[in-house]
Amino acid sequence: MTKISLDTARQIIAATRAAGRDLNLNPLSVVVLDTGGHVLAFEREDGASPGRFGIAQGKAYGAIMLGMPGSAQMARAEQQAYFMAAVNGVYGGQVVPVPGGILVCDDAGAVLGAVGVTGDTSDNDLKAGEAGITAAGLVAKG
Amino acid sequence: MTKISLDTARQIIAATRAAGRDLNLNPLSVVVLDTGGHVLAFEREDGASPGRFGIAQGKAYGAIMLGMPGSAQMARAEQQAYFMAAVNGVYGGQVVPVPGGILVCDDAGAVLGAVGVTGDTSDNDLKAGEAGITAAGLVAKG
Amino acid sequence: MTKISLDTARQIIAATRAAGRDLNLNPLSVVVLDTGGHVLAFEREDGASPGRFGIAQGKAYGAIMLGMPGSAQMARAEQQAYFMAAVNGVYGGQVVPVPGGILVCDDAGAVLGAVGVTGDTSDNDLKAGEAGITAAGLVAKG
Amino acid sequence: MTKISLDTARQIIAATRAAGRDLNLNPLSVVVLDTGGHVLAFEREDGASPGRFGIAQGKAYGAIMLGMPGSAQMARAEQQAYFMAAVNGVYGGQVVPVPGGILVCDDAGAVLGAVGVTGDTSDNDLKAGEAGITAAGLVAKG
Repeated sequence: MTKISLDTARQIIAATRAAGRDLNLNPLSVVVLDTGGHVLAFEREDGASPGRFGIAQGKAYGAIMLGMPGSAQMARAEQQAYFMAAVNGVYGGQVVPVPGGILVCDDAGAVLGAVGVTGDTSDNDLKAGEAGITAAGLVAKG
Repeated sequence: MTKISLDTARQIIAATRAAGRDLNLNPLSVVVLDTGGHVLAFEREDGASPGRFGIAQGKAYGAIMLGMPGSAQMARAEQQAYFMAAVNGVYGGQVVPVPGGILVCDDAGAVLGAVGVTGDTSDNDLKAGEAGITAAGLVAKG
Repeated sequence: MTKISLDTARQIIAATRAAGRDLNLNPLSVVVLDTGGHVLAFEREDGASPGRFGIAQGKAYGAIMLGMPGSAQMARAEQQAYFMAAVNGVYGGQVVPVPGGILVCDDAGAVLGAVGVTGDTSDNDLKAGEAGITAAGLVAKG
Repeated sequence: MTKISLDTARQIIAATRAAGRDLNLNPLSVVVLDTGGHVLAFEREDGASPGRFGIAQGKAYGAIMLGMPGSAQMARAEQQAYFMAAVNGVYGGQVVPVPGGILVCDDAGAVLGAVGVTGDTSDNDLKAGEAGITAAGLVAKG
């Protein structure tokens, strides 16, 4: 596989949402981006606040553009907040540097896309997204 | 019904995509927005170009914000191009004033959200979206 | 009077809305701006589409910034569309150059602020706004 | 009730302003947004500085988009400043994460809109807004 098909994207979203229910999380919003950072599929669960697309997309977009998952971006932001602020200037304010932005890789480590999850704590968002990616037979780098 | 649930949004997208196959259209991208113009769900079919989210969203967003479907926006743009250009300034460049931006209404005519379809001709995008909304038991105003 | 008080702004809005009812217009949205183009008061009638604040504000903002009501802006846009497009670049896309952006003046012709009305045809928006300004004992330049 | 009517929005603003006078606060500016974050009504009291619309709107807008009142946003900003900065990038710089951005809920806890108050200290802004929402028979989540 060199790219994520829509069927795979929908499978990742369904499995992420199922993990959210299993973990008893708040309503989740889940986006899947391609290797260019462009949206393939998105779903926002009933009860989530209206602005969740932007947060989900921002988590995944930063992961793609920097080749670095949300947890690594957060570490960098905690060491050097002005760097991540500058990165956001470069990318038009679309980067949300916290866990829940997850690279989707193949077995060889090649990046196929990214998933962004939001709605619960950042750590729980990450858990649900990793479960979704794994369920689709792919490798999560969160 | 006073709002579109995620299940209904997914049903609209599935039926719009099915209509696209029946009509033998190019790969479609379909977004469903809520009454505030915020994304509920989106899918981009395999083979569509990467920028399709923005076009789908722009068709549906203008319909919500102005209370006017894409075909009516196009008529206005053809009469008064500078007016629709100005509207786009007001809404941050997010309005795509052509058919395929469709209001989703209940039986009484209340707006519940909007659908944006892109990928084939604007008129075919509209046909597929109308079929999708109708299949979900709702009223399309395209 | 050298500026519009909040009481006067509310009076203008109430009288504009009353004129809308008398003229049997669609639900109106009405904004009053001060001499700096900043919002004093706004009301959006039930049934109006959600994006009406931006349109009302854009009509009034252009009137203030250029010292020229919406009808004069429209005449300029029809002669020289690229000029009004350039003006919109300068003012951050906040100018909507059609009737319904109305200067509010005192008896000596000094500008005290502007009113923006949207919801019906531009010409009807203008009629309602002029009635509202006149009812408040001020001079409308539409 | 599933949405805030203009009459209810005006009632909230009137009662918030009355609370400001009772508490002897500085001139207040008060906005009411719908469930999509779009402006229903706004008033700026005489003597307030001209930029108050943007602050009031930013307090209420963040509450709607994140489903989180200003006090909770402030707590998050104090723990993780770069996160709220990133959120502001996502929402176009329209989020003001301090008390005075208040969710308006029905008895069952469903969000009907948000109120933004500015002019005095953030804590006093919050008190006045809560009083206004309660006076209109709705539930404030501040």
